[in-house]
Amino acid sequence: MALLVQKYGGTSVGSPERIHAVAEKTARARRQGHDLVVVVSAMSGETDRLLELARTVNPDPPARELDVLLATGEQQTIALLAMALEKIGCPARSYTGQQVHILTDSAYGKARIVKIDETRIREDLDQGRVVVVAGFQGVDEAGNITTLGRGGSDTTGVALAAALKADECQIFTDVDGVYTTDPRVVPQARRLDRITFEEMLEMASLGSKVLQIRSVEFAGKYKVPLRVRSSFEEGPGTLITYEENEMEAPLISGIAFNRDEAKLTIRGVPDRPGIAAQILGDVGKANVNVDMIVQNVGADGTTDFTFTVHRADYKKALEILKAVATQLKAKEVTGDDKIVKISVVGVGMRSHAGIASQMFKVLADEGINIQMISTSEIKISVVVEEKYLELGVRALHTAFGLDKAAPQAT
Amino acid sequence: MALLVQKYGGTSVGSPERIHAVAEKTARARRQGHDLVVVVSAMSGETDRLLELARTVNPDPPARELDVLLATGEQQTIALLAMALEKIGCPARSYTGQQVHILTDSAYGKARIVKIDETRIREDLDQGRVVVVAGFQGVDEAGNITTLGRGGSDTTGVALAAALKADECQIFTDVDGVYTTDPRVVPQARRLDRITFEEMLEMASLGSKVLQIRSVEFAGKYKVPLRVRSSFEEGPGTLITYEENEMEAPLISGIAFNRDEAKLTIRGVPDRPGIAAQILGDVGKANVNVDMIVQNVGADGTTDFTFTVHRADYKKALEILKAVATQLKAKEVTGDDKIVKISVVGVGMRSHAGIASQMFKVLADEGINIQMISTSEIKISVVVEEKYLELGVRALHTAFGLDKAAPQAT
Repeated sequence: MALLVQKYGGTSVGSPERIHAVAEKTARARRQGHDLVVVVSAMSGETDRLLELARTVNPDPPARELDVLLATGEQQTIALLAMALEKIGCPARSYTGQQVHILTDSAYGKARIVKIDETRIREDLDQGRVVVVAGFQGVDEAGNITTLGRGGSDTTGVALAAALKADECQIFTDVDGVYTTDPRVVPQARRLDRITFEEMLEMASLGSKVLQIRSVEFAGKYKVPLRVRSSFEEGPGTLITYEENEMEAPLISGIAFNRDEAKLTIRGVPDRPGIAAQILGDVGKANVNVDMIVQNVGADGTTDFTFTVHRADYKKALEILKAVATQLKAKEVTGDDKIVKISVVGVGMRSHAGIASQMFKVLADEGINIQMISTSEIKISVVVEEKYLELGVRALHTAFGLDKAAPQAT
Repeated sequence: MALLVQKYGGTSVGSPERIHAVAEKTARARRQGHDLVVVVSAMSGETDRLLELARTVNPDPPARELDVLLATGEQQTIALLAMALEKIGCPARSYTGQQVHILTDSAYGKARIVKIDETRIREDLDQGRVVVVAGFQGVDEAGNITTLGRGGSDTTGVALAAALKADECQIFTDVDGVYTTDPRVVPQARRLDRITFEEMLEMASLGSKVLQIRSVEFAGKYKVPLRVRSSFEEGPGTLITYEENEMEAPLISGIAFNRDEAKLTIRGVPDRPGIAAQILGDVGKANVNVDMIVQNVGADGTTDFTFTVHRADYKKALEILKAVATQLKAKEVTGDDKIVKISVVGVGMRSHAGIASQMFKVLADEGINIQMISTSEIKISVVVEEKYLELGVRALHTAFGLDKAAPQAT
């Protein structure tokens, strides 16, 4: 008899048949005696359809109105799921973000949840109803409709679980858990039964697009037990844990990678305080997110400064950097959008030296040149030429003992 | 410099192009210095699409959830129209029924407006914005989303005009005004420059489907100046007036008719008090609306009782009536779903005797037998065989001087 928050993404509710399947899954958990709050996204394709409609009307639609429009996607799904639940005899009630008062700030299109009023949800749960809540959306203090940005439904689920002190927040998706790496790249990749919150954070931000990074941060802040499960198959999925000192933590939990990176370098800038802030300030103002940053001091009192951005922002970043270079009288600006990032992630590496050198050796043995290095307590990332992505990931996956046992020969 | 409420129906906002056309129309009025509140319906076809989706998921969808689903239709249109207005430099802001707090009762699917909070609208108007409001929807005291039923957007428009004490409520539709009768039946039909509220009420209820009857009642209650205009053509439309004693009121303003009628008769029921209530009570309980009612007392202490219903309810009503007949030991039940109703409407007839006999004579001259008669202060209705509809309407239109002047021979 637990209180569960279940979240189903757009693919899981992409058709009337799938909505029925979700209703069955939910009703089954209800019959087992659990209290259930279900968060759903818009039916797959609906958000894109609405975006397209908006752009037809106004190529640069006002953010406030875009949120009013997009919020209808989830509103349709909650109504349909509640109908499907009632059809199979499971009392249910749907709520928009505005109705359960998911209070957010006013940053249209990327709003952050400030507070959730759980009174109404509790009342319905007490009366035995399944509560269906629209993901991705909220309302600001002035009563304007807001959306949380792509993937925001995960955040809604986690935030509700935190507000309700739920026993578990289950994120149903089209994969059956978190893997040691992308199985499409490494067929030997294994599903992890559990992963620590910090590892998940590194894996998510590095491109294992199982969970939206913000939802993971949110879960960590409130220590919400989070489980990734498959919408389409039975199975335990992967539990995200918060154990601080796990005795038997594996050294390395996974190999993450990111294909969509580009690298920019500005050479020969004066080496004085504030220079990094000046360079990155202009880039940040243009809404370009910077990922890795590396700075080396040269011999002549100047410094070289390299950073990576999302490949889609490459051209924009390059232009900004050229303008900055002129201002700073820098020697030159170079760039490369044919690079990728590969990372090994694991809480176990905290207490083990030598992981970095092992990683670099594995790559060197394959003839892969490392262009940039960046490390954190539980992660080491390298930037390499794009063509080495698969080779590098597979070699590291094997070297760190992540391959699943090969089937026995008979 | 007036405060205008404009309402555009589903056909008027049925595509991005049409939404742009509405934006242009609205912006033009804004540039003329008027304050504007615009009420819109869902894009044509959208409500039906959502109903179909609901029925696929649950053939008998819970009313509360159906309203949550249907309300998304108008929410999409308000966002798109606000975007279109902003695109042409006209500041605008959209609001759902919930956001401007159109408070209704909790009768899902057919809710009635209780109160509107106009504070927020006034603030936006004061700042020079066009306020775009979702028609057809509201919110009950508990915060549940409600809808007002088909055509409810007209009611939203009128209710907003009443709350804001607007100078005029303009209903934009696919006809350019109210006609003396249906031009498809009588090519000589004329557009009326003005029509009294009471006449409009009779015309609307009799099947001139220009305005939803509830919106006309609402307009009358608050004396909202109401104008029917075309979305697609320029023109003054028809103004609905509230003059109590118009000096030059025409005798007859129009000929209304209704094709979708059916007639039921129960013969030889005991003539005692309460019998009509008993018969109609059972019919009403089954949600069948009764239109005309005629009762004749026979010679043998029994009475015959005839009434008309919408043709779609004919079979249901017939079954109920048969059951009632058995209970009351009535002689027989008969019915006819091949009948129509024709009415002459005009406030002028109040002070003129002889309209009824003139009407009956016109029909008799054409060999049309009258099956039922019902009269009010400003209307006389008759039921005739279906095949006589066009003949009867044309003859009356000419006889009461409603035909437009024929073009002069040269």
